[in-house]
Amino acid sequence: MTITSLQNNAIKNIVKLGKNRERQQQGLFIIEGARELSLALRADYNIDSVYVCREMFEKTKYPDVLNTLDRKNVFDISHEVFKKIAYRENSDGIVALAKPKQHLLSDLQLSANPFIIILESVEKPGNLGAILRTADAASIDAVVVCNPSTDLYNTNIIRSSVGGLFTVQTAVCTSEEAINWLNKNNITSYAAELKASDYYQDVDFTLPSAIVMGTEADGLTNMWLNNADKRIKIPMRGEIDSLNVSVSTAVFTFEAMRQRGFK
Amino acid sequence: MTITSLQNNAIKNIVKLGKNRERQQQGLFIIEGARELSLALRADYNIDSVYVCREMFEKTKYPDVLNTLDRKNVFDISHEVFKKIAYRENSDGIVALAKPKQHLLSDLQLSANPFIIILESVEKPGNLGAILRTADAASIDAVVVCNPSTDLYNTNIIRSSVGGLFTVQTAVCTSEEAINWLNKNNITSYAAELKASDYYQDVDFTLPSAIVMGTEADGLTNMWLNNADKRIKIPMRGEIDSLNVSVSTAVFTFEAMRQRGFK
Repeated sequence: MTITSLQNNAIKNIVKLGKNRERQQQGLFIIEGARELSLALRADYNIDSVYVCREMFEKTKYPDVLNTLDRKNVFDISHEVFKKIAYRENSDGIVALAKPKQHLLSDLQLSANPFIIILESVEKPGNLGAILRTADAASIDAVVVCNPSTDLYNTNIIRSSVGGLFTVQTAVCTSEEAINWLNKNNITSYAAELKASDYYQDVDFTLPSAIVMGTEADGLTNMWLNNADKRIKIPMRGEIDSLNVSVSTAVFTFEAMRQRGFK
Repeated sequence: MTITSLQNNAIKNIVKLGKNRERQQQGLFIIEGARELSLALRADYNIDSVYVCREMFEKTKYPDVLNTLDRKNVFDISHEVFKKIAYRENSDGIVALAKPKQHLLSDLQLSANPFIIILESVEKPGNLGAILRTADAASIDAVVVCNPSTDLYNTNIIRSSVGGLFTVQTAVCTSEEAINWLNKNNITSYAAELKASDYYQDVDFTLPSAIVMGTEADGLTNMWLNNADKRIKIPMRGEIDSLNVSVSTAVFTFEAMRQRGFK
């Protein structure tokens, strides 16, 4: 049976999941796209239910994603219903509801020579998504998000990370917890600051390192500026005194990878 | 006199300028924010008229921006009218209409050892904006946009570039014109490609260079892959096979600046 009514209760509940508070109340979040869902499955996310618009799903590059799912949790929906619950117009017709994970600092598994990205109060979901893609590409140890203004399961974060939320280890905590954790693990922290004395390219990133990024509007708080081991900056010769935060994060990260001979 | 009516013809025309076709018909585009306007003024843009919500403009960090403008072209507007014509909620209460420039390849002024960013059919205004910020920070020679799907004066480009559109030399042309121009100027072109044989960090960017970036969905067309001097890639170790295009552009650009000893 295909769900065709926009008044269907399940459909109405999915629409509500666009809001942070509803995600917490329902204990669910939305994954859109077969590729993203396949990455979530590989990361052992618990899938609650899946909604498929068959005419759109025909063009997916990941038809196998449904094979491992319990059929009784897969529901067919009409194109109209899909448009109502989907974020993207041109996707492959699949929306899943999944249970969030905990994202505890203490659960992070570190390599022998870790590289960590720490974000303080990152503002735009699209920037966090782009940073997760960078973290995936560079295969770094973890992204730690301190005092976030939204939960990690914001639909726009998942979408703009292209599934990177499921491939990168992430933790959510307070800045104080992150500082203690870095100390405990002997990881040197580099705080990004416009007026820092050291240029990033002169820093030795070959040892265990964390870069710490503030918001575009206000930079890092004093908590981080006072507690980080060093402050670093990107040379700026233009008339505008800031870079997009996902851009500056990537410049630091790939310089670290270059120094580490990463290919 | 303060304009308070949303039915005012000037206000209705400003709202229409959100559309590409209207910008062409009216020969005007929107600049929002005192900082952006001051950068446009410094770049000798021709300002047609300025609309100011005085209660919001009180908090601007750039109060002097009105000083150089002809008073008869400055109009006061109510908060309600500002909200109708403004893109951002939290801005400093000023919207200007300006005349577009031409952006001809032949007008670009090159340094002795140029570095150029070339974008083929870039899709998202926010990405182009972030790339313009990178170009400003690295103070490169020019950004060349080939076969764009929107004009450069899309409000979201101006906003996300934080005025970078006014501080960076930009040209719009076909890919063929750009290829001929690079050859004529003896600039080596490096086409970004996922399957390229050379890693970007092994390339010598210290000589006149251009990086050429395709769309995230499809990469570069064969026109560029066949005509660029070299193909380069960023090492990718993750499960997702792409980076945000503004991120990969910045990684190439700042590696070039690092090699050039740029501080």
